[in-house]
Amino acid sequence: MSEINLNVVTQRFILGCWRLSEWSYSTQDLNKYIQQVIELGINNFDHADIYGDYSCEELFGNALKLTPSLRQKIKLTSKCGIKLQSSKFPQHTQHIYDTSFQHIITATERSLTNLQTDYLDLLLIHRPDPLMDAAEIALAFNQLKKTGQVLNFGVSNFTPEQFELLQSYLDYPLQTNQIEASVLCHENFINGNFDHLQMKRIIPQIWSPLAGGRIFTDTNELSSQRVQASLIKLARHYAVTPDLIALAWLLKLPSQPQIILGSGKLNRVVHAIQSININLSRDDWFELWVSFLGHDIA
Amino acid sequence: MSEINLNVVTQRFILGCWRLSEWSYSTQDLNKYIQQVIELGINNFDHADIYGDYSCEELFGNALKLTPSLRQKIKLTSKCGIKLQSSKFPQHTQHIYDTSFQHIITATERSLTNLQTDYLDLLLIHRPDPLMDAAEIALAFNQLKKTGQVLNFGVSNFTPEQFELLQSYLDYPLQTNQIEASVLCHENFINGNFDHLQMKRIIPQIWSPLAGGRIFTDTNELSSQRVQASLIKLARHYAVTPDLIALAWLLKLPSQPQIILGSGKLNRVVHAIQSININLSRDDWFELWVSFLGHDIA
Amino acid sequence: MSEINLNVVTQRFILGCWRLSEWSYSTQDLNKYIQQVIELGINNFDHADIYGDYSCEELFGNALKLTPSLRQKIKLTSKCGIKLQSSKFPQHTQHIYDTSFQHIITATERSLTNLQTDYLDLLLIHRPDPLMDAAEIALAFNQLKKTGQVLNFGVSNFTPEQFELLQSYLDYPLQTNQIEASVLCHENFINGNFDHLQMKRIIPQIWSPLAGGRIFTDTNELSSQRVQASLIKLARHYAVTPDLIALAWLLKLPSQPQIILGSGKLNRVVHAIQSININLSRDDWFELWVSFLGHDIA
Repeated sequence: MSEINLNVVTQRFILGCWRLSEWSYSTQDLNKYIQQVIELGINNFDHADIYGDYSCEELFGNALKLTPSLRQKIKLTSKCGIKLQSSKFPQHTQHIYDTSFQHIITATERSLTNLQTDYLDLLLIHRPDPLMDAAEIALAFNQLKKTGQVLNFGVSNFTPEQFELLQSYLDYPLQTNQIEASVLCHENFINGNFDHLQMKRIIPQIWSPLAGGRIFTDTNELSSQRVQASLIKLARHYAVTPDLIALAWLLKLPSQPQIILGSGKLNRVVHAIQSININLSRDDWFELWVSFLGHDIA
Repeated sequence: MSEINLNVVTQRFILGCWRLSEWSYSTQDLNKYIQQVIELGINNFDHADIYGDYSCEELFGNALKLTPSLRQKIKLTSKCGIKLQSSKFPQHTQHIYDTSFQHIITATERSLTNLQTDYLDLLLIHRPDPLMDAAEIALAFNQLKKTGQVLNFGVSNFTPEQFELLQSYLDYPLQTNQIEASVLCHENFINGNFDHLQMKRIIPQIWSPLAGGRIFTDTNELSSQRVQASLIKLARHYAVTPDLIALAWLLKLPSQPQIILGSGKLNRVVHAIQSININLSRDDWFELWVSFLGHDIA
Repeated sequence: MSEINLNVVTQRFILGCWRLSEWSYSTQDLNKYIQQVIELGINNFDHADIYGDYSCEELFGNALKLTPSLRQKIKLTSKCGIKLQSSKFPQHTQHIYDTSFQHIITATERSLTNLQTDYLDLLLIHRPDPLMDAAEIALAFNQLKKTGQVLNFGVSNFTPEQFELLQSYLDYPLQTNQIEASVLCHENFINGNFDHLQMKRIIPQIWSPLAGGRIFTDTNELSSQRVQASLIKLARHYAVTPDLIALAWLLKLPSQPQIILGSGKLNRVVHAIQSININLSRDDWFELWVSFLGHDIA
């Protein structure tokens, strides 16, 4: 295993806490895990109010509280704008988006309480809401910024048009658009998001970089089968595992995206960050691109 | 029936004269109808040169002439840019778009003559024309503005790209993009038009807000069936009729669209404007959204 | 045959050297052909490094060398950014895009050598590359501009989003987007490219204006059959051949595109440029538009 540059790890990886509630850590063990992850160079932790049926932020906050000095060593991202049906919120009779002023403020303050912190480094609108009033979101952001409860803002899963809509109501730049991408998900190549973010000099954050595991398990789609075969072939060539090839494929993108790793197992994270040492050739990058397409490029 | 705020009616509704020739009013009765609609708060009348096989504007103009003082109480919108085959225009051998300087001037002057007025409050390009020369349209607009024949300009059924193209040749802002939307027509949510108009702080005008009646009659599409069931359920809950729910759904959009009502029956208009008093909850708005989609939101 | 305006020919046509290697000219004959084409008014010759398995530029350069004074009478366009598998480049193990600094510089210098010229009038990025780093392309362009090796820059087959991305890294305007269009290819009407280029006051260049011959030969597609029937009907009406109607259809576009003619036969080029004298009526333009669509316009 070659030397890992901590600064590059810090720059390129985020720990996703999406499934934190399934990691089955005691508060003490989660605290230890967070510290181990930080030692690897990852200091950015990605949350959303709704993760784990609204439970992950509280679990994380409890673990953080055990070592108060940790807070200043890390960055905390949260998201709001979705309401899920949950036994914790009997008033949520339906799965909806809510980007109203009141919901943004309420959800963010709840995130702060649950995370046991005074501020978020980054708050994202979780999904584009057909009812989103950009002026109203801006009011909520401005208030959260003024009180110091949130330092920076961004969006997730927005189109370029939606990004520009919200940006047009803000006096400060949105920091990111957290979008899905992987060797099996080209959507944000096609819809212009990667082009738009590179144009805006904005670093994308990428969720589901391994397509939620489908790069290994999906045998229904011919495109998945082709990509799997290519990953295995390239893994052999680079003398690594196929998942590292899939991560290196994203790391090579010119917009320099940050990749969200959603694992609760230290050895998996230790493994995943090896991908920064793989310099995938253009040939190999395009082999994966073409494997998914199922036809040659023009 | 609760109190109706006249100012809100004025702000949110337009009377569409698309089918005026089918209303079978005498000139006298149409004059009376116009006055009754104005008393309800609606002062904006939407025309196009082609409506009713090029007949509606003349019928409206004749009715207007009976009470000359009416003109200053109302706003008149017309549209040009389409040529229909018609016994009135034997030279139209084909259904085409024509956004040439000459056609815009000729059609607008004919609209003014037919409407028996000196000016239009708003002139829209009816459809995006693959042959549209934005510089040439701008010349026509500028001339019509200079002569006072048209006060303001806009477009209809344009994409954001087409809107920006024409805008880039004008020294004054386009006032609207008149687009189709309803619980059964999400097209302008998907193509970025609603986002774009909200970004530009431009009020959309919405045509076919009840999908041309299909929200009641279309039983072929599963999506229509699901939406109908939701409309009926919500109508019961809000103690109104389903069409009012469909209108309230549009009124809730953050871009604050104006809705075009195409009825020639006063009681129907009196009924429709009740929708401004329905404050559809987000839950109910999303129930209709999801009913049309046929799957849950992400 | 009516009088041909040389200036209009110069303005509207480009000679495409895509298939130059199949023309089977001796160097002497190619030199003669180039001079004959120039006499027709066409002074713009379109190349790419890869044309003819990397052979066309060299053949052209050899012909150019016979009459050195020709260079200043013509404009030379080349393109880079694609790597093809070729016996000439055994290191190309795969068909990929490469828009790296090094490849742009290397490919352009090779084009200059092969074309036996000191400079290109225009260099285009051949295809949008999912790995394109606009900052890196800008560095390459800036160097090529500074050394005088390339006077102007543009792109080919880019979306509006991709065009704006690259433009945002340059201090000088991109000169064109070379895109496909014909009576059988409406793609760039739909994706916003023609609107975008008209907005930017940029002249598109059009490749495959006769759909690579498919306007005559494709009998599989109903849309092609309908368009063929319309072309034949209109050709009879205008007393010309169907291909001229297809060219006149493009020449009528308001963005004033330049059309790339890919023929090595002088009589075909002499014939094609007659299209500038056909003023296709709007009716006839829309007949072809609707023939392809298969349904009336809205």
